[in-house]
Amino acid sequence: MSGALILHEYAASGNCYKIRLTAALLGLSLERRPYDILKGETRTPEFLATVNANGRIPVLQIGDRFMPESNAACVWLAHGSHLIPTKRFAHADMLRWMFWEQYSHEPNVATTRFWLAFVGRHNLSEMQLGLLPGKIEAGNAALALLDEHLDQHEWLAGDGLSLADIALFAYTHVAEEGDAFRLADYPHVQRWLEAIVAQPGYIAITD
Amino acid sequence: MSGALILHEYAASGNCYKIRLTAALLGLSLERRPYDILKGETRTPEFLATVNANGRIPVLQIGDRFMPESNAACVWLAHGSHLIPTKRFAHADMLRWMFWEQYSHEPNVATTRFWLAFVGRHNLSEMQLGLLPGKIEAGNAALALLDEHLDQHEWLAGDGLSLADIALFAYTHVAEEGDAFRLADYPHVQRWLEAIVAQPGYIAITD
Repeated sequence: MSGALILHEYAASGNCYKIRLTAALLGLSLERRPYDILKGETRTPEFLATVNANGRIPVLQIGDRFMPESNAACVWLAHGSHLIPTKRFAHADMLRWMFWEQYSHEPNVATTRFWLAFVGRHNLSEMQLGLLPGKIEAGNAALALLDEHLDQHEWLAGDGLSLADIALFAYTHVAEEGDAFRLADYPHVQRWLEAIVAQPGYIAITD
Repeated sequence: MSGALILHEYAASGNCYKIRLTAALLGLSLERRPYDILKGETRTPEFLATVNANGRIPVLQIGDRFMPESNAACVWLAHGSHLIPTKRFAHADMLRWMFWEQYSHEPNVATTRFWLAFVGRHNLSEMQLGLLPGKIEAGNAALALLDEHLDQHEWLAGDGLSLADIALFAYTHVAEEGDAFRLADYPHVQRWLEAIVAQPGYIAITD
């Protein structure tokens, strides 16, 4: 370990929760430093200069170094652990699901939840309201793709729980917040969510 | 190696080129199988059933297995090579830039190029035209963030060329196609682009 681990975060963000859940499953402790993204606290000159020039959380601080991007922070935490498959195909396949999460799942499932459950429909811009139906459709397509894969496989990549499952659990298990998605439509996803909740060391997003 | 390597691709896509460039820098050969994304050839029932349920290219076929997501395919190809740092922080930092590429760079820099240079402004929907100014602004913010980092560092992660540089080279070096971005505004990015072009084994996106 390279000194203290500090998580710069907004607690309700699934991207931040991924990192806390990875640490919990590995028995690692994190100091938590909260920011209110609705008040722009990650866009201040001080935050941009010291924590992340990209103005986003989460950022995992490792001693005096900073690791933005939730999935990269999880990889750093899980280095050498059972949460990262070592076989060549399974290792890349874990990352395949994590890249897919950031490109095809998060911008739809997470953004819809954030807009409807946190920002509020009445506060959305005309542009956001115009994008919403497409995001709900793409979010359901992402959940359907997950469901189809989990019908055939116990875990997303390799033979056991990996960071791919943690990364996709984060926003999937709270997808119903905002009332745009119904997890009952995705029974294999539900079975897989329950298997993650049952892991030793599991913590909830509200913990 | 697990049998023949086949790249299911659309040649002008930077995401597909990343994989060809990684293979070229490693001296690996790929069989190329082209699809016309403008004609929906990656959304056919056969493609969805056998190559990628997500309906996207690139997909790297490794024997009888399929690896979607460009950056994951690059990781598979570069397994154990000098293009992937082995030190814990540098390894995660490489992935940090690759996740950032898919979340903050590609949806802005690449989508703007695709819309303006391939689809054509006159074929864009009203929604796309409405999104375009925000994508150009966010694309310039991504290029500025790269430029700032490359002012202080020779390469994106670790001490040498890595997959992070290849992943971000792909759409950055063609960012001017469509006339929305000016690389002359980003001198450190230009120095870094030239250093990648000078690598032994380099191939162009049009090769």
